[in-house]
Amino acid sequence: MPIVTVTAPAAQERYCIHIGSGLLSACAERFSPYAGRRAAVVADENTARLFGEALLAQLRDADVDASLITLPAGETTKCTDSLLTLYDAFLDRHLTRADLVVALGGGVIGDLTGYAACTYLRGVHFVQVPTTLLSQVDSSVGGKVAVNHPRGKNLLGAFYQPELVLIDSNTLDLLDARQVGAGLGEVIKYGCIADRALFERIEALGSRAALWPHMHEVIARCCEIKARYVHEDPHDHGIRMQLNFGHTLAHALENAMGYGTLLHGEAVCIGMVAASGWGERLGITPAGTQARIRALLEAYDLPTQVPQGLSADALAATMALDKKAEGKTIKTVILTDIGACRGVPLTADALRAML
Amino acid sequence: MPIVTVTAPAAQERYCIHIGSGLLSACAERFSPYAGRRAAVVADENTARLFGEALLAQLRDADVDASLITLPAGETTKCTDSLLTLYDAFLDRHLTRADLVVALGGGVIGDLTGYAACTYLRGVHFVQVPTTLLSQVDSSVGGKVAVNHPRGKNLLGAFYQPELVLIDSNTLDLLDARQVGAGLGEVIKYGCIADRALFERIEALGSRAALWPHMHEVIARCCEIKARYVHEDPHDHGIRMQLNFGHTLAHALENAMGYGTLLHGEAVCIGMVAASGWGERLGITPAGTQARIRALLEAYDLPTQVPQGLSADALAATMALDKKAEGKTIKTVILTDIGACRGVPLTADALRAML
Repeated sequence: MPIVTVTAPAAQERYCIHIGSGLLSACAERFSPYAGRRAAVVADENTARLFGEALLAQLRDADVDASLITLPAGETTKCTDSLLTLYDAFLDRHLTRADLVVALGGGVIGDLTGYAACTYLRGVHFVQVPTTLLSQVDSSVGGKVAVNHPRGKNLLGAFYQPELVLIDSNTLDLLDARQVGAGLGEVIKYGCIADRALFERIEALGSRAALWPHMHEVIARCCEIKARYVHEDPHDHGIRMQLNFGHTLAHALENAMGYGTLLHGEAVCIGMVAASGWGERLGITPAGTQARIRALLEAYDLPTQVPQGLSADALAATMALDKKAEGKTIKTVILTDIGACRGVPLTADALRAML
Repeated sequence: MPIVTVTAPAAQERYCIHIGSGLLSACAERFSPYAGRRAAVVADENTARLFGEALLAQLRDADVDASLITLPAGETTKCTDSLLTLYDAFLDRHLTRADLVVALGGGVIGDLTGYAACTYLRGVHFVQVPTTLLSQVDSSVGGKVAVNHPRGKNLLGAFYQPELVLIDSNTLDLLDARQVGAGLGEVIKYGCIADRALFERIEALGSRAALWPHMHEVIARCCEIKARYVHEDPHDHGIRMQLNFGHTLAHALENAMGYGTLLHGEAVCIGMVAASGWGERLGITPAGTQARIRALLEAYDLPTQVPQGLSADALAATMALDKKAEGKTIKTVILTDIGACRGVPLTADALRAML
């Protein structure tokens, strides 16, 4: 079994991201530091059914007293009510600060479970087992944990690093095409902002089918890029905001349409096309970049247009509430080329005009 | 105006604790880094009435757009419902990550507001203005923020350092005698665990009236001691647990009697007498120590006995749920002398037998 290990920086110490096919059924040794402890594995109905027993068996092989907590699938689970449900489940299992919480699922489960692990008893041991492409290349690195608020996505959150991340690329074979696409959107984002070679490699391969045999390396490359950003800016006060390319509009779209209607990665695709257009209009992004990004997204069957019926006024108002809003302007990531970018402060009025 | 400045360590950087009489009416310059920003000042009904306008005036002098959020007074406010109320109030004021949250009050307001500041938008700027002796010598240093859960005190929390702490010792003149006593319990605790000279000075002064003119220096000394612990152990995984002397029983008492019946500092007084007795029975604490601590607490009109009608079984069961419980044993702080201590793992059975 080939395993790629990426070392990611945490605030205090480094932790390891292990990437391998079949890792979920061969990870008992990774849990040996937790022998004799209790573990609560948090999953949604789908990941519990698909991967729950395999992971519990590995934990038990490592002499960890593990049990499964199952939540409903979907973005609506990422709320404060679910958080209270998890705290109760941890208390029912008498979890102490010496014990372990494991997130088994996509970004919703990872973000919610990480937030619960961060805040229960002021922090318990935390391991991530991301099972979607999006969570493998994005939320598994960087320590951002959060839940949604009725008035905005990820409005409540914290920074909390996992001690270990286990990525089994075999889990992707069970994802539906739309979920794969959402992850590919973020993969292409890394190419746009930081790695022209990655962008051009995906462009040259030209289709999901051609890309698939290389996904393993692509995931590792994305984790490396993200780890570099996190190392330079652990608390997201500076350069890490470049990772938000496409996100200014994406968050507003998700908010306006109701969480879950559009997948996050799909919203980011639409946001990247929009933001590269804004950059061209501002004279910062080279002409033709938007067309090239749009063509790549279309080749991979990804959405590129704002759905009809959404008002520019409503989207601009939601963007002004975004947590990236600083004082009166909204710092928006604009490409200076394929593979390079910078933050540009834009007013809500300017964004409304360009929408 | 005499000001003592103690530098406290945060995870990433140091922050300053300024201690002075009358500081609340002369702190505008301390807020100059936040000029042009918004600030939400969180207070309870009492601290809003007593100090709210004075603090808002200072913030406005520093060109900070400040407004007051008032919550009910009392321990019951430190709950998840209040947290949701604060998030809504922050959203109503359009607070962004560039803006500021100020806690004006005792430990309840400080812990709750700090938790909200830590988790709103993954963390906004945070300033503490503690107004009770207990919060000035304890919760203002160390970055522990929390809310209570129906099943236990401080079960939900995080570590989040303030950027600035302002302590106006004049606020103590408005505290009632019981609140002062609760703070004195923690002051005496610092003497017990880490500073024999402080313990003996308080012993020699012999009464609250004699101690009062020296409170200013005593607060600074307590902040220094606590800052040293936090520096050595920012995330409370080691030596910082010594600060929990008296707290194993104290938390169980507060839980069994309902939060707010017994003040936290009063519960700690009773817990210190109990824990010094346990230490003598275990042969770790020198004989006579319990009597000396009891005599000192009585001289300062502080409680020393477990209230009647509480069952040892119920208290032991609650202690087993305590967040300091590690696996099957409860690490309890035991004095090795006046001014020195260490953690000793005790089973719930052993604690029940000694109660």
